[in-house]
Amino acid sequence: MADKLRGNLVVAQSGGPTAVINNSVVGVVDEAFRHACIEEVYGSFRGIGGILEENLMDLRQEDPRTIRGLRSTPGAALGSIRLKVKDHHLPRMVEVFKAHNVRYFFYIGGNDSQITSDDVKNLAAQEGWEMRVIGIPKTIDNDLPETDHCPGFGSAARYTATTIRELDRDNHSLPYVYVVEVMGRDAGWMTASAQLAKVDERTGPHIILLPESVFDAQRFLDAVQNDVDRYGRCVIAVSEGIKDAKGNPVAAAEKVDAFGNRQLGGVSQTLAENIEERLGVSARWTKAAAIQRCATHIASPTDVEEAYMVGLAAVRAAVDGETGKMVTLVRESDTPYRCTTGLVDLAKVRGRTRDVPIEWYNAQEMEMTEEFIKYVAPLAGPIPEVAILEGHFAAKLCAPWQDPSKKK
Amino acid sequence: MADKLRGNLVVAQSGGPTAVINNSVVGVVDEAFRHACIEEVYGSFRGIGGILEENLMDLRQEDPRTIRGLRSTPGAALGSIRLKVKDHHLPRMVEVFKAHNVRYFFYIGGNDSQITSDDVKNLAAQEGWEMRVIGIPKTIDNDLPETDHCPGFGSAARYTATTIRELDRDNHSLPYVYVVEVMGRDAGWMTASAQLAKVDERTGPHIILLPESVFDAQRFLDAVQNDVDRYGRCVIAVSEGIKDAKGNPVAAAEKVDAFGNRQLGGVSQTLAENIEERLGVSARWTKAAAIQRCATHIASPTDVEEAYMVGLAAVRAAVDGETGKMVTLVRESDTPYRCTTGLVDLAKVRGRTRDVPIEWYNAQEMEMTEEFIKYVAPLAGPIPEVAILEGHFAAKLCAPWQDPSKKK
Repeated sequence: MADKLRGNLVVAQSGGPTAVINNSVVGVVDEAFRHACIEEVYGSFRGIGGILEENLMDLRQEDPRTIRGLRSTPGAALGSIRLKVKDHHLPRMVEVFKAHNVRYFFYIGGNDSQITSDDVKNLAAQEGWEMRVIGIPKTIDNDLPETDHCPGFGSAARYTATTIRELDRDNHSLPYVYVVEVMGRDAGWMTASAQLAKVDERTGPHIILLPESVFDAQRFLDAVQNDVDRYGRCVIAVSEGIKDAKGNPVAAAEKVDAFGNRQLGGVSQTLAENIEERLGVSARWTKAAAIQRCATHIASPTDVEEAYMVGLAAVRAAVDGETGKMVTLVRESDTPYRCTTGLVDLAKVRGRTRDVPIEWYNAQEMEMTEEFIKYVAPLAGPIPEVAILEGHFAAKLCAPWQDPSKKK
Repeated sequence: MADKLRGNLVVAQSGGPTAVINNSVVGVVDEAFRHACIEEVYGSFRGIGGILEENLMDLRQEDPRTIRGLRSTPGAALGSIRLKVKDHHLPRMVEVFKAHNVRYFFYIGGNDSQITSDDVKNLAAQEGWEMRVIGIPKTIDNDLPETDHCPGFGSAARYTATTIRELDRDNHSLPYVYVVEVMGRDAGWMTASAQLAKVDERTGPHIILLPESVFDAQRFLDAVQNDVDRYGRCVIAVSEGIKDAKGNPVAAAEKVDAFGNRQLGGVSQTLAENIEERLGVSARWTKAAAIQRCATHIASPTDVEEAYMVGLAAVRAAVDGETGKMVTLVRESDTPYRCTTGLVDLAKVRGRTRDVPIEWYNAQEMEMTEEFIKYVAPLAGPIPEVAILEGHFAAKLCAPWQDPSKKK
């Protein structure tokens, strides 16, 4: 067996955190500690910002109980950053890698982070600095290509489905229209997961709106009216990023973040106000915003385990000589659900995203298909059950009630 | 021992649901089934609306597993209503009670429901209809008088503290100002519970704003700036009902509900926009709205048990001849926490509310005191723990980073 590459390791986190992102850090750390060729284990403070600024945290000095505790801690424990890496950043990164003898670099992130990892790998090769660079997938949006799904998504799906199932019971108590705004600018995976909340015909969500499907205001209002007529109420899960036929977002664009992404908001409020005005029925809305990506208390057990597993796999691959790859999740079976890890070239990932397959959305009924349920259910894990009374009404013995205050 | 009053029972739910309100229904049902003097056990569909409309559900015909399942089901399983009972409703209620031989009436609700119970008791007495009427407390707002606390509040407190502790980790990852809007129009109990989220000096919430304390925009902005300077970030828990020195709500009044209460909203957005404009720092906001009152998946175990206990106690009291009372929770000890039930005259409850004692709020530091923590901690139960890295930084070996793109 060839000699292993000897040197220090840096792990970093990027972009919006997930409920389980720290599990990938712990996976990297746990596996790193098993390999004698890996000397120092550094956490870069705030993504590649910590490399540029040379803020490297020595993770060997942390209490092992703290490292263990990160498995149930939301947010990015190493700090995160929203910085699209440009060419002028790369030489500095390599300078710091050389100064600290960094031979292993793991970047936990979404689409932009995979591009960064690919760039770092290419530059190090050009500079003749031998190092191993592996991208570790992470995104509640579930929009990375080449992987069955992304760590972070299962927990976001579980949060969405649990919350909407609970809200549906609340809405049953006091019937009106309720609009729930769900994260996911361009890909509707999280919003689609609301389908898991539905127990049977008596329950919501009644309408799901994805960014992958053109928003038609009149068809939407007709569907709401139809549900109000049939059920006296309507629970709607709407992606923050829905767009009309011209491609304009339904929510007014507010501002632009450092990645150049528009910060959207207010879709649920916009829809609720339109329903009240146009249909004359009471409508309420919620915008849980970042709560949706940090609800570790209800993280999917499968997601927790897989987020850890991709961290382990990344270090093993790197120690075995792999570089310029992203770890993937490979589904082996639906029932029972079985999943393992794989590797894909970062060059095949960069610049690509993955939408919800449009055939998994029934645009007529505004609901997700059974195929989608089969895909998402094992990722989200169990959704808390609710009990619903059958309602055996006693025979009426009095004359119908006439409210005297409503007499003409 | 005197003969027990023999006849049928009606239980009803009113107002905004809580995460545990169905436990009180199950408590009433379980206890009712133990008393031979209680014949039919009816659930009134949608509060007193079900009495006026004579929509009475026979709960003896429900599957016992469904009744049991209600203990972990959010929303009001019997349906709820927002109807302020007026004099002209009362004769109809007594008509229906007489037609169905209703001798026991239990109304699970907040301030308005206790008034209704008192009115029903008085009218039945005037009409010579012998019946027992007991109010069962329920409100996330915790603002009923004469009881140590209200069923529903502990779970709302647990939700608030858990969510803010999780958001604080998210906010630590990507530092900016985060404004969390918390329910509670006039009483700040829920918002105050955010204090339980704080782990130590490194964590939020950094600012708590209660409706019991006058909102001063300049003092608030100064405090935010101070936290941004010290911590690079600021997590704010704000009650939806905060008011300025003139008594005007900070959020514009939107509409009036059937109780005559203003529906407020948009406080968090208003504050976030002002922070961005006036301080020039990035601010985000969330408005979880009804999610806050139906998160049964993270209900406080103490609250679940106590909501059940008040249901049992109400039936026992009624069978023993009590009427015109509300069940109360009586704290016997803080450590270990022990609580039992009591009874108070509805006449002493009606028309009164209970604010957060102003001495439990440190208006200077905008945080809650230890006395408040002692009060609320056992009600909310355990808040999920988080791990925080110490951060042992490696020595810097390179020159400080100069971002070429930021050079003049």
